[in-house]
Amino acid sequence: MSTSDAPERRTGVTRRAVLTAGGVAAVGAVVASTHGAGASTDSASSIPFFGKHQGGIVTPAQGHLALGIFNVAASDRQELKRMLADWGRAAQRLTVGLPLVETYDGSYPPSDTGEALGLGAANLTLTFGYGPSLFNDRFGLSSRRPKVLVDLPAFDGDELNPAFTAGDLCVQACADDPQVAFHAIRSLARLGLGTVELQSLQLGSGRTSATSSEQRSARNLLGFKDGTNNLRGGDSALLKRWLWVGARDDQQWMTGGTYLVARRIQMNLSTWSSTPLKVQESVIGRKRSSGAPLTGEREHDKANFEALDPHGFPVIPLGAHIRVAAPETNGGVHLLRRGYNFIDGVDERTGNLNAGLLFLCFQRDPVKQFTALQGDLARSDNLSQYVTHVGSGVFACPPGLGSNDELGASLFD
Amino acid sequence: MSTSDAPERRTGVTRRAVLTAGGVAAVGAVVASTHGAGASTDSASSIPFFGKHQGGIVTPAQGHLALGIFNVAASDRQELKRMLADWGRAAQRLTVGLPLVETYDGSYPPSDTGEALGLGAANLTLTFGYGPSLFNDRFGLSSRRPKVLVDLPAFDGDELNPAFTAGDLCVQACADDPQVAFHAIRSLARLGLGTVELQSLQLGSGRTSATSSEQRSARNLLGFKDGTNNLRGGDSALLKRWLWVGARDDQQWMTGGTYLVARRIQMNLSTWSSTPLKVQESVIGRKRSSGAPLTGEREHDKANFEALDPHGFPVIPLGAHIRVAAPETNGGVHLLRRGYNFIDGVDERTGNLNAGLLFLCFQRDPVKQFTALQGDLARSDNLSQYVTHVGSGVFACPPGLGSNDELGASLFD
Repeated sequence: MSTSDAPERRTGVTRRAVLTAGGVAAVGAVVASTHGAGASTDSASSIPFFGKHQGGIVTPAQGHLALGIFNVAASDRQELKRMLADWGRAAQRLTVGLPLVETYDGSYPPSDTGEALGLGAANLTLTFGYGPSLFNDRFGLSSRRPKVLVDLPAFDGDELNPAFTAGDLCVQACADDPQVAFHAIRSLARLGLGTVELQSLQLGSGRTSATSSEQRSARNLLGFKDGTNNLRGGDSALLKRWLWVGARDDQQWMTGGTYLVARRIQMNLSTWSSTPLKVQESVIGRKRSSGAPLTGEREHDKANFEALDPHGFPVIPLGAHIRVAAPETNGGVHLLRRGYNFIDGVDERTGNLNAGLLFLCFQRDPVKQFTALQGDLARSDNLSQYVTHVGSGVFACPPGLGSNDELGASLFD
Repeated sequence: MSTSDAPERRTGVTRRAVLTAGGVAAVGAVVASTHGAGASTDSASSIPFFGKHQGGIVTPAQGHLALGIFNVAASDRQELKRMLADWGRAAQRLTVGLPLVETYDGSYPPSDTGEALGLGAANLTLTFGYGPSLFNDRFGLSSRRPKVLVDLPAFDGDELNPAFTAGDLCVQACADDPQVAFHAIRSLARLGLGTVELQSLQLGSGRTSATSSEQRSARNLLGFKDGTNNLRGGDSALLKRWLWVGARDDQQWMTGGTYLVARRIQMNLSTWSSTPLKVQESVIGRKRSSGAPLTGEREHDKANFEALDPHGFPVIPLGAHIRVAAPETNGGVHLLRRGYNFIDGVDERTGNLNAGLLFLCFQRDPVKQFTALQGDLARSDNLSQYVTHVGSGVFACPPGLGSNDELGASLFD
């Protein structure tokens, strides 16, 4: 892959003076329009950036995640608008495996940090979301806030770390290569220097949720298959009902969009792994080896919540995770899950592994879907004894862009 | 892949009562001998565990790293010996993609934590090393300590974090899948509960050092190709001279072994990325896009350290990283590097990215090789302004095992 772009391709050039650790420098962060820019890359490994919906939602879940949460430091509406447009142009390039355009004058810092040169698009998707706090009075956006975009309530057992909670903006980068996903968030953070600050960067791998019928279920760090009953990209009727915001739901600019709920779930792995296998299986409601419900033989067998054992007790206990979370016990509510395992080394205070699940899910209405469901889970899911939610955010993800659209423009116009 | 092993395969079974967070539990950590155990796995994706040398050294560098540093909590020589033997048997299974044997009685915690079930061997290698502190008086091993296995000296600019420094034992797990590498370290930590404590677990990806001539150079987080002049698995004469411990070097038990130096190098990415490209290139001594030395055109062109520019200054500056680190300026010293990029989110104190390089290198004599070289680098490498060494360890990696050998036995017998 070339590390620079032919000058004749450069249209719509912007330059930004940005604050850096070393003082103010003209970084020359030049972002070109990308019409035709994908020509030199391997299209087989890239996901279209333009479309009715954003990528990274029903896209078959890639192997790696970098989740960036940003806060807006600027107080200027125009500056925020300009940065979002820059982000959109950058995303077009990054998702076809092109670097941000090179600065040809070596006297300036390179506009692209370079660590992903040669790695290709690696099926990178960038999914942008706006947090409730973006719609307070700072940017004159309060009339644009969707009614369902409100901070999640406190749930039983939550122990939220502010670093992983809330946030004005969220970018979910997913890719087949972790360095490509990281590079994308790093690039957006640099483009936004002086306008936004990166509150947190969370890396995940080992996707726990299949989002396409071709993908097999994967295992979380509890050792169990996860996401067996997930919505899939091919479930058109369910996606229309439970995933995509409809034209009459609320704010017009969200039509075709969806809401992301991101929860950082710490797992007490040492307690879990000293729990007998039968107890683990009764907590989840599934057999570990096959992933089948305790009433079935195969992973995708339908769970029978009525079945009783010879002593008259439910085969799938009343507090089993799959019972409490099942659509059948929650008014039919579905979520599109897109979780990743995280492993952040050893907690120096406790000596335990600092690891768990970055639970990401998308839905049409976070109040009626995630919040309703999690309220039940926090109260009665037997799994709650083994996990602690330590981060939380909700974000409005607008629909996809047409090839002449600017990211964020629909918020402001 | 089956989650259990046929009972008739189980030979040499051991059972360990281990301390867990919930108290003392009989975990039933059953580790079977693995003669023939690889039959059911995809051998194309596995690296032989047995051999003259340990895997994970000249093995073509896999994409992901999990580096575990352990300290021995037990004071009993026999307990340490037994645990190392268990680790060796576990490693045989893990490296062919088999779980630690299942406990068939669901009343016990499962012996395998399960998160890697179905992921195969993923070319997993496990490379074991012993730190200098293992040879103090606790285990009666002081007479077995190789003379060159001494704590590294303090280097200019070191800011070592104890969590990432020293350690009695080190296990380098490398694999094509990060969850497989993590699972291996987690499994060894569980097997060793009560005998060892996991001091740190460091994850890396985006290998920065090719170790085979078939592998292309990869880029570090500075955006530059790294490891261009690395030793390769095919360089037999250089490996004999610089990598493998010879029969007359010192301790017999180290013949065919090597020494691992592990340095955690934090990069000041915000300062680096606000540095002009020409300055970056002069700091490294290479062109960023091609990786060629400043005196050449292609990555593998030999650097000409004598070349002067029209003003009479060296084209490759005196403090350029590649000049200070080159074998030509260090008495011909070579290292086998095997580094990985690490990304640990945002540093809450500074708001900067907590990221850099897990610099791993193998050598025949750490005193004459790494220590001599790093002394020069710490003093005169221009790159030192942009990086800080925050972790450090040195470990004696014994030779590989024959199929009837126990890991660690050569230390004690």
